[in-house]
Amino acid sequence: MKTYIDCIPCFMDQALRAGRIATKDEAKIKKLLDYVGSMIKDIPMESSPPETGNIIYREVRNITGVDDPYKEIKKSHIKQALALYPELKKIVGSSENRLLTAIRIAIAGNVLDLGVNKKFNLNEDVAKILEQDFAILHIEEFTKELDKAKSILYIGDNAGESVFDKILIEELGKPVTYAVRDIPIINDVTYKDAIASGLEEVSEIISSGTTAPGTILNLCNEDFLKKFYSTDMIISKGQGNYEGLSNVDRSVFFLLKTKCSLIAKDLNVKENDIVLKMNNKLKD
Amino acid sequence: MKTYIDCIPCFMDQALRAGRIATKDEAKIKKLLDYVGSMIKDIPMESSPPETGNIIYREVRNITGVDDPYKEIKKSHIKQALALYPELKKIVGSSENRLLTAIRIAIAGNVLDLGVNKKFNLNEDVAKILEQDFAILHIEEFTKELDKAKSILYIGDNAGESVFDKILIEELGKPVTYAVRDIPIINDVTYKDAIASGLEEVSEIISSGTTAPGTILNLCNEDFLKKFYSTDMIISKGQGNYEGLSNVDRSVFFLLKTKCSLIAKDLNVKENDIVLKMNNKLKD
Repeated sequence: MKTYIDCIPCFMDQALRAGRIATKDEAKIKKLLDYVGSMIKDIPMESSPPETGNIIYREVRNITGVDDPYKEIKKSHIKQALALYPELKKIVGSSENRLLTAIRIAIAGNVLDLGVNKKFNLNEDVAKILEQDFAILHIEEFTKELDKAKSILYIGDNAGESVFDKILIEELGKPVTYAVRDIPIINDVTYKDAIASGLEEVSEIISSGTTAPGTILNLCNEDFLKKFYSTDMIISKGQGNYEGLSNVDRSVFFLLKTKCSLIAKDLNVKENDIVLKMNNKLKD
Repeated sequence: MKTYIDCIPCFMDQALRAGRIATKDEAKIKKLLDYVGSMIKDIPMESSPPETGNIIYREVRNITGVDDPYKEIKKSHIKQALALYPELKKIVGSSENRLLTAIRIAIAGNVLDLGVNKKFNLNEDVAKILEQDFAILHIEEFTKELDKAKSILYIGDNAGESVFDKILIEELGKPVTYAVRDIPIINDVTYKDAIASGLEEVSEIISSGTTAPGTILNLCNEDFLKKFYSTDMIISKGQGNYEGLSNVDRSVFFLLKTKCSLIAKDLNVKENDIVLKMNNKLKD
């Protein structure tokens, strides 16, 4: 997905929010906003927004000296999600369509996103999404690919959401590789967070190599890229991965809740919709 | 009021909104955002936000070539307000405290503000504000100054709101000078808008000389400054004028609805509160 002019004030907003979480020193935050302001003229509008996010959050680290401002928040989200896990497993167990319920749950976990300016209440939001109609639901294509798949690459998004991902992975019944960000970036899931979420019990965890808040292929490492192009099926979680991968030339299933009006527009759905979408390139 | 770091993403937001109203040419809007981004490092944080607004909206005009992007919107707001005028006059006429009701009405008109990112429904919002408790109500001080005043300077804010101002001016019963912006800036009231609102029937209309979306004394003309320092009483409407005048060393009565969290904080009230406040310098 390309960068829209509406992304630009949002970049400033994100810099301010991340700066505030990393430090109380207003002079450092102002320096960060100065930096982001001065780079606006150089943002390639054809690049995807997480590519700019990559630069912004690198500067958050450089200017504040804090490498993982969201560390404690991530821990708390994983804890909250783990507390919900037994209940969610029961919901899957007693549902008529276990796979679809697990997909819903994986999407419900996607509310745990601190890259967007949206408040969430985990329990309430999960309950709502369990009842919500899908705006796009390519479940036939999903089931068809899943049946044939011998290997699945599952690209994680946020820490805490990772626990919800575990529930879906357990229903897939196929060997899964779970890809995480290379370093802490916003509250995105890293190797450590994936371990804390119990994902090593159900998948092989790898780093995609990206330091951006989304999967940008030209920032990924070779191992990930090999896997990306050779695996039978790809499941991509959340907005940042959608932004990075929406135009790739292989099949990808995007699972997300739209929390940004531009991503909603790009998907031709409304804000706060839930989506299971096979990317256009192969489907249409 | 000084500039807070939170104002910076808001400046970008305002530039985007104003750019969009002025033109459909995305390249021009991007150029505007580039400009605003690059000026962030030079914003004096001790200056008041409308001083930066002054530069931003000047660039909206320069880059888009449109001098009055809000022209039609202002016309429509004045028309809507004039349609409400007879009803509002009746409300004042049948109220127990005509002056306080007229003050409420003048504040209700302050919802017609396009400098902030808030939607409004004129009729609903007016009805609500007529019932709303004041967060600050310096009515004793107001009445005392009004009783003694031989001349009043009333500093207008938005077009349309100007019709609501007329209702308060009619209740003041004293000679009033109504000050407007020097040129079109967002939907702020100009000489033309004041005439269209019928203010020449109840006041002398003057330009403050400012081209900013607020009264910045060092941008005002000499006639206004003379009036400002010699008049017996000053009534200042809205957020932009508050931002510019909150620290001046003479008595000013601020009438406004808080639509920005920082202005609310500065006033020690909540967002969406209504306020009639005498400035601190003389009162405390």
